[in-house]
Amino acid sequence: MDNKRIHGGDIERVARTYGFNTSDILDFSSNINPLPLPRVVKDYLYEHFDTLTRYPDRDYSELRQALAFYTKMPLDYLLMGNGATELIYLTVQTLQPKRVLLPVPSFGEYEGALQNNNCEITHYQLREELGFKLDLPNFLSVLKQGYDLLILCNPNNPTGQLINKDDMLTILNEAQKTNTIVLLDETFIEFVPDVSGTSILDFLDGFENVLVLRAFTKFFALPGLRLGYCVAHPSLVEKLAERKEPWTVNGVAALLGPLLLKQTEFIRQTRTWINKERPYFSEQLSQLNKLKVYETYGNFILLKLLEKGATVQALQEKLESRGIMIRNAASFHYLDNTYFRLAIKDRSSNMRLIKNLEELL
Amino acid sequence: MDNKRIHGGDIERVARTYGFNTSDILDFSSNINPLPLPRVVKDYLYEHFDTLTRYPDRDYSELRQALAFYTKMPLDYLLMGNGATELIYLTVQTLQPKRVLLPVPSFGEYEGALQNNNCEITHYQLREELGFKLDLPNFLSVLKQGYDLLILCNPNNPTGQLINKDDMLTILNEAQKTNTIVLLDETFIEFVPDVSGTSILDFLDGFENVLVLRAFTKFFALPGLRLGYCVAHPSLVEKLAERKEPWTVNGVAALLGPLLLKQTEFIRQTRTWINKERPYFSEQLSQLNKLKVYETYGNFILLKLLEKGATVQALQEKLESRGIMIRNAASFHYLDNTYFRLAIKDRSSNMRLIKNLEELL
Repeated sequence: MDNKRIHGGDIERVARTYGFNTSDILDFSSNINPLPLPRVVKDYLYEHFDTLTRYPDRDYSELRQALAFYTKMPLDYLLMGNGATELIYLTVQTLQPKRVLLPVPSFGEYEGALQNNNCEITHYQLREELGFKLDLPNFLSVLKQGYDLLILCNPNNPTGQLINKDDMLTILNEAQKTNTIVLLDETFIEFVPDVSGTSILDFLDGFENVLVLRAFTKFFALPGLRLGYCVAHPSLVEKLAERKEPWTVNGVAALLGPLLLKQTEFIRQTRTWINKERPYFSEQLSQLNKLKVYETYGNFILLKLLEKGATVQALQEKLESRGIMIRNAASFHYLDNTYFRLAIKDRSSNMRLIKNLEELL
Repeated sequence: MDNKRIHGGDIERVARTYGFNTSDILDFSSNINPLPLPRVVKDYLYEHFDTLTRYPDRDYSELRQALAFYTKMPLDYLLMGNGATELIYLTVQTLQPKRVLLPVPSFGEYEGALQNNNCEITHYQLREELGFKLDLPNFLSVLKQGYDLLILCNPNNPTGQLINKDDMLTILNEAQKTNTIVLLDETFIEFVPDVSGTSILDFLDGFENVLVLRAFTKFFALPGLRLGYCVAHPSLVEKLAERKEPWTVNGVAALLGPLLLKQTEFIRQTRTWINKERPYFSEQLSQLNKLKVYETYGNFILLKLLEKGATVQALQEKLESRGIMIRNAASFHYLDNTYFRLAIKDRSSNMRLIKNLEELL
């Protein structure tokens, strides 16, 4: 397995190694909404189990209609995927870009898809001195050099940094001028304080060169469901649809998707939780010794061990032996064995981690 | 949508058009086991719904262990996929074959995967005069011309014809001599009268050039689950695994797969049903006027309208207005608008179709 494609959430390994039940492990390595889903979701699946005995509707009409309502986008702007991951791979396979600009550190699967297609990758380094914030003028001067594809993650995983809407539109306009397609990964955007003030969905009809990725994985806390989608101009959606494998979205995802989007109370509670817990957890972590905490707009936080010689691996092993998982960030470009990423969880889980870190740091 | 990639099972369309509930439609267009799954499967999913709130184990260890037991193959011969479909696409993408030999009529998705990769396809015509049975000496003489990839479906969809084990081993040996990789689709093989006497799984360690595809879709009647697997020499499995997207198999599939393989009573009943119903349904259909019924070893039957000027489209419309779906086979190579395919269902459904055909033909 390529080192760049390590992921969080390997609960089975930790459970086996230390003899825990998987359900007893506190997993800060996967960026998943910790709020419990309404019971109705589970019950609905039970009642409609028979849906699995039929092929999913190949066009996923109901699902796309529900998403059209949720995103306020026209139906022909929507394409479903087996998580956002399928759509990353499909985009690269379909567009076959030669030269790709990739700000890093960022999500490892971009690299996976690009390598599969032998793309020439230019890594644009997000600088630690700037708290990994994008230096817009500098970035634009690089973008102007001309690329077939730019991949951006907003807010960015694992740094948590956000590109605001004005800056993003500047980037998209510049990309349009140089015929650069932009794959904009917004899978964490539903966690930012001002979603509609940050997402560029409303501007998509002006950009035939932009694909926005979204997913149910993180916000609806169902990574096992494998449900993502792409929002883009119909000309791009059609290109991808032509190349797409059929039935990649499973029947459970097709069934539950529309129901999940209707859980307005869960969505409201999630927003309340993240807007309260993100500043609180960040602040609590900042008070710990020998730790640098980076600003975040996502549902996760990047941190760095400051003590000389300290490694995340050592910390990770100690935490895992206590049934707590964190994400070693050394697999990300330009990050080393002193960086780790934490999911933001519920208050009591967060405090349990703080207590353990106090003891261990 | 490419005409060659039409599929059965579009229940939603028929329900919308004629105002039926999807559950009231009798679907002979999808080749799915009609036996009801044991209740325990549905209950188990309900009890373990929480599995969806975690990422699936990326190696699918439990699932592969269960399959190793079921197939009696070593663990490192197994690779999981989002239905067999993902593995068809992955195989073609990974091997990037230039020249491909494809006996047709056969399953349309092979063509889809090959076209995505701009392969040069040689269609080998299975001849109607032979009941679509493979003419082995003739086929071998074509195979000897040298191809990068041969795709075979056994038993073949939609014709129902079977290549017996001796003939198959002759083909695989010949392919080995000419460095031809063989993608052998055995997704329907669990329905043939003598599974272990037909499948070539036992011989795989002698063939580093053969990939066998299997799926849960048809036999376990869960096409919405999206669960397939590939059995091949570890050298081939590793190549595919390296290129594979992560988490393509969803959490429900990973959860239910091992449980399904343990349903020995369901498996036994399915074998009893198909061995009884296949000859009975074929015989009953043969007694209808103006209809040719082809020999079959699968859980489906290919038929041809013999009356001059008769079209499947006309028959199909009449049946759909009565809530019965059949598969127009005109989208398959070398078949025209007089061919259709029927799934073999339970006795009462089969007899209901016979009665309707008697009235309509």
